[in-house]
Amino acid sequence: MSEIIFGKILRADLSKGTFSQEIVDKRDVRDVMGGRGLGSLLLYRELASGIDPLGPDNKLIFSTGPLTGTTAPGNGKIIVNTKSPLTGIYLFSVSGGDFGSRLRASGYDAVIIEGKAKSPVYLYVKDGVATLRDASKVWGRGTQLTQELIKEDLHDDGASISCIGPAGERLVPYAASINERRALGRGGIGAVMGSKNLKAIVVNGSQKPFVAYPDEFSRAVKQSFLQIQDSPLTKSGKGLFSRLGSPAMLDLMNEAGVYPIKNYQEVRSSEARRLSAEELRKHYLIKDVACSTPCPVRCSKYYGVKDGPRAGAFSEGPEYETLYSFGGMIGNYDLASIIELDALCDDLGLDTISAGVSIAFAMECFERGIITKQDTGGLDLRFGNVDCVFSLLRDIAFNRGFGAVVGQGSRHMAEQFGQGSEAFAMHCKGMELGGYDPRGAKGMVLVFAVGPRGGCHHGGGFPIIAEVMGNKYDRFSEEEEKSALVANTRNRRVSFCDAFPMCSFTAAGVGDSCASELISTATGIEITAKNIYEMGERISNIERMFNCREGIRRENDTLPQRFLKETLSCDDITDTKVENIDKMLDDYYALLGWDLNTGVPTPEKLKEMNLDWMTGDIWLDYSAGKRRNGCSSCQPLDMVTEIE
Amino acid sequence: MSEIIFGKILRADLSKGTFSQEIVDKRDVRDVMGGRGLGSLLLYRELASGIDPLGPDNKLIFSTGPLTGTTAPGNGKIIVNTKSPLTGIYLFSVSGGDFGSRLRASGYDAVIIEGKAKSPVYLYVKDGVATLRDASKVWGRGTQLTQELIKEDLHDDGASISCIGPAGERLVPYAASINERRALGRGGIGAVMGSKNLKAIVVNGSQKPFVAYPDEFSRAVKQSFLQIQDSPLTKSGKGLFSRLGSPAMLDLMNEAGVYPIKNYQEVRSSEARRLSAEELRKHYLIKDVACSTPCPVRCSKYYGVKDGPRAGAFSEGPEYETLYSFGGMIGNYDLASIIELDALCDDLGLDTISAGVSIAFAMECFERGIITKQDTGGLDLRFGNVDCVFSLLRDIAFNRGFGAVVGQGSRHMAEQFGQGSEAFAMHCKGMELGGYDPRGAKGMVLVFAVGPRGGCHHGGGFPIIAEVMGNKYDRFSEEEEKSALVANTRNRRVSFCDAFPMCSFTAAGVGDSCASELISTATGIEITAKNIYEMGERISNIERMFNCREGIRRENDTLPQRFLKETLSCDDITDTKVENIDKMLDDYYALLGWDLNTGVPTPEKLKEMNLDWMTGDIWLDYSAGKRRNGCSSCQPLDMVTEIE
Repeated sequence: MSEIIFGKILRADLSKGTFSQEIVDKRDVRDVMGGRGLGSLLLYRELASGIDPLGPDNKLIFSTGPLTGTTAPGNGKIIVNTKSPLTGIYLFSVSGGDFGSRLRASGYDAVIIEGKAKSPVYLYVKDGVATLRDASKVWGRGTQLTQELIKEDLHDDGASISCIGPAGERLVPYAASINERRALGRGGIGAVMGSKNLKAIVVNGSQKPFVAYPDEFSRAVKQSFLQIQDSPLTKSGKGLFSRLGSPAMLDLMNEAGVYPIKNYQEVRSSEARRLSAEELRKHYLIKDVACSTPCPVRCSKYYGVKDGPRAGAFSEGPEYETLYSFGGMIGNYDLASIIELDALCDDLGLDTISAGVSIAFAMECFERGIITKQDTGGLDLRFGNVDCVFSLLRDIAFNRGFGAVVGQGSRHMAEQFGQGSEAFAMHCKGMELGGYDPRGAKGMVLVFAVGPRGGCHHGGGFPIIAEVMGNKYDRFSEEEEKSALVANTRNRRVSFCDAFPMCSFTAAGVGDSCASELISTATGIEITAKNIYEMGERISNIERMFNCREGIRRENDTLPQRFLKETLSCDDITDTKVENIDKMLDDYYALLGWDLNTGVPTPEKLKEMNLDWMTGDIWLDYSAGKRRNGCSSCQPLDMVTEIE
Repeated sequence: MSEIIFGKILRADLSKGTFSQEIVDKRDVRDVMGGRGLGSLLLYRELASGIDPLGPDNKLIFSTGPLTGTTAPGNGKIIVNTKSPLTGIYLFSVSGGDFGSRLRASGYDAVIIEGKAKSPVYLYVKDGVATLRDASKVWGRGTQLTQELIKEDLHDDGASISCIGPAGERLVPYAASINERRALGRGGIGAVMGSKNLKAIVVNGSQKPFVAYPDEFSRAVKQSFLQIQDSPLTKSGKGLFSRLGSPAMLDLMNEAGVYPIKNYQEVRSSEARRLSAEELRKHYLIKDVACSTPCPVRCSKYYGVKDGPRAGAFSEGPEYETLYSFGGMIGNYDLASIIELDALCDDLGLDTISAGVSIAFAMECFERGIITKQDTGGLDLRFGNVDCVFSLLRDIAFNRGFGAVVGQGSRHMAEQFGQGSEAFAMHCKGMELGGYDPRGAKGMVLVFAVGPRGGCHHGGGFPIIAEVMGNKYDRFSEEEEKSALVANTRNRRVSFCDAFPMCSFTAAGVGDSCASELISTATGIEITAKNIYEMGERISNIERMFNCREGIRRENDTLPQRFLKETLSCDDITDTKVENIDKMLDDYYALLGWDLNTGVPTPEKLKEMNLDWMTGDIWLDYSAGKRRNGCSSCQPLDMVTEIE
């Protein structure tokens, strides 16, 4: 086959203002596909360890995958890889919408951005032609106005734009990049863009994606649609996600007693029922939205407020995670305010999770007297005082006053506040947690503690549905079975959802063999259902190796002390906490083939994963001094650099 | 000529849900052209006197003109005629943007809307096909979201939409209808739409406007562009309006001492310089905008706020009138707040002039103790307290609390407040004044007192530029020459700008003979420069007759007592007030051929204007009982109904 299956890369050097093109090796496509697979691989190869995430040596890799822009359902998403300014380690970030399919239509499957522009620019890629354009007119603007002005400037209404707001320009470490009203939310993609003077990336075109076997692919697509319609989660208009979107999780989590309230001081509340997806739908739904076409699930929702003090507020979302971070976490049970906060974060270019969780931490510190009104610039930061959150968010985005403190994230705030506050700074490796208390669903211990981008709910597995909904698992159990559950959910998500890729909400309705049919017929590379999990494991090992090379070791795979020391009780839950994280890590590392002492993937595992070329980057003498950092015996090197 | 020159009308009966089409008689086109000419004529013919402006008998007439949608500059505007819920008399309202040209492209030159829909609908007209569509999804939404949702709903991104916000839905008498970010601002078009359950009118299509002599028309268009480039007002990028837009007026008016401050208690302020167009441009300009194409003037501006507490605020505008109503009038000299208030009014669907002037009136009443915090719901309504204006505007739009009082406009507020407050309620006939103190430019006495829609600055002439800029006129003089100045500026604007029509800012650069060439070659009807003024006079007489039929007489042609009784002094201005409005009215009526006793156009004037068919509607026995209201002798009837 002489055609390019996948992997046409545009490389933009912002320092020089030059472009070049590359083709990904077909063996790499076979091993990791696109998206998070390609992105992590390139990031590992191209970034020296220890670089400053906000310096010109960091890179941004925007990737699609072989399913992007095809007729497969849920194919529009974009994945970005970089080194995170929030955590100092590996980062991928994902956004829905049609940016991915528009990028592929532009003629490229991925874009690597490096260097730093002298003055604000945006990158415009259309039908194979890339240009850097002066962004001075949109610099300083919110993300919604920026998108509008750029479309007008280019006379290209159909373009898809991912752009930063004031937060990214001011290098707030959890600044997001926004396409339409969807976010590359986590870990500071927006700050990295800001550090490069890159206001936006704009993509459009009419190029068709390569499909190896069109007829067979069409059959597989048809099959996937049938399966989606057959699933209680994804069936059009009736499935749980279709009708309610991710907010469907709220009642489930609140009932299970894992819905975090007031900075994880509580985990269930009758008040939280006012935030339920049914309430959202009943009072605020404008319409169901397919964030990219074709998607029969339409889990995205437009919500708007018609009356009362928040009238006029409008957002695509909030998703469950925002109902957590600006809901229970800050003691707020007013849906209208959450809709408005969600829209405000989108416009400022802020991650709603890190913003809300950092504010919740500040609130607990305030209520405990660790900080006072003198510190907060007069804000009465009690839980539930949502009015002050609006001005605080603006101050975070503009990096001013107390906002400049909260904008640094929970880890740095705890370092600054001291007085034992780090025990309830709810982050892992600097990444604020997703909205699931692991004390009530122990699989989440591993997800948060070992997750490749720190304490997020997406990157390291998603066992919680099986734990709280089915009968198969005891959710309070810390036994070995949790390791396999976490690893399996992780591996499927990493490859199928993030590397092929298919939106995880859509993919929830599509079986493994159908997934393998889709990717095999799209690429012409035979991928079995088993291969999907192997590929996910391979990509996860690349991510882990990136982090280990940055100095991450077993001792970093831990949780906030609150989960380990404070027991939780409510109704049916009695005195639960994370009892033995060490035992869980032992089990998990053993399953994964990671060194029990250090948490570094063993040379044997790397060889099995076809990643043996990485080994010498960490393991001593593995390649007899020929590889960087390799020197004398098969033991892991110490940290290459201090973690930021 | 068998082609339709102009005047294809779509009539939509919302009560029945039916449509019909009509063609305007060519003699009517010759007499009044389109826009305000056609609209006033149809309104006069079709509305019985005394109807309720918010009842189903009122009609909305959306009109374009023969120049609309052609290649002539500034051709996109739309004119709407109706009976005003704010004043109870005649109303036209004008908006820029491309709604007019999109309407014409839909295949119709005008749309008449009558009756009342049973539930919220919007009207969609595209390429000759009209449909009424369920508006329940957008009812309750702000104007910006409404436009977006409707475009998505119709999959018609290029459509132009004029829609109401919460204010129109709640029948606030100065509710506007908004297309893009431009307003059919004055007099309550939005409330009339709301009363009909009409959320929006949506137009698009690909029909080309009729042009009688294309080659000659092209030459005239070319000539008009050359003249525009030759004018110090309109030259692209350099002319006063081109560079600064209508805010250029601010410094001029402030220097002249006619810029109203604190509800016309003062007329010049060094602080007002902070609101100047140069400041706006320097600190807030995003870009110059042609609100419709082709327009070389680009007087419209995008302004945005990048920093400080108003960061993120964005508006197309504010225009001068908003820098008056939300600036000096309320004692506010913060441009960023005015940009945000402007955008808020657009989104709520409120006229910025009536809103700001009504609030300024409330502020003066508050400072004088006529109303207290008990009345204002706790608002500290001192001049300059701009923070409380944001919440008050929302309450006006939602018709709640003290907002429900201010939302009724100055006239009704004064009736309610009493205690002599009517002396400084700054309206004529219920319409809040434009931003020019007539005590310092006496031509404005006639504009405000006699204007066809009440105290507006647009409808009844625009002498102020000649009064404050040139040497020809003594601006403090109340002599006869002012009558001619007012009448001439009125007549040109009414026909050329509002009936042909061409945007008045563009038309400022185009000479009369070029204007006559444009309209003659477009229509094939020979219109001389002199005819332009005659046509303006004819249309003005139609408007006057409409008002006289509603009961308007000479005694209603007056000004707020403040102008007649309170003298004004500042620097070079000493003790000026309006000395003798009666003398000015005598002169003006005499010039216009209006009866000196009553202010009704005389039968002779009506005959001269080719409007003798109207005479019997007011003058007794004129048509020997054959006309409504005609009975016994050539004297005017008394009021047909009480004015609302």
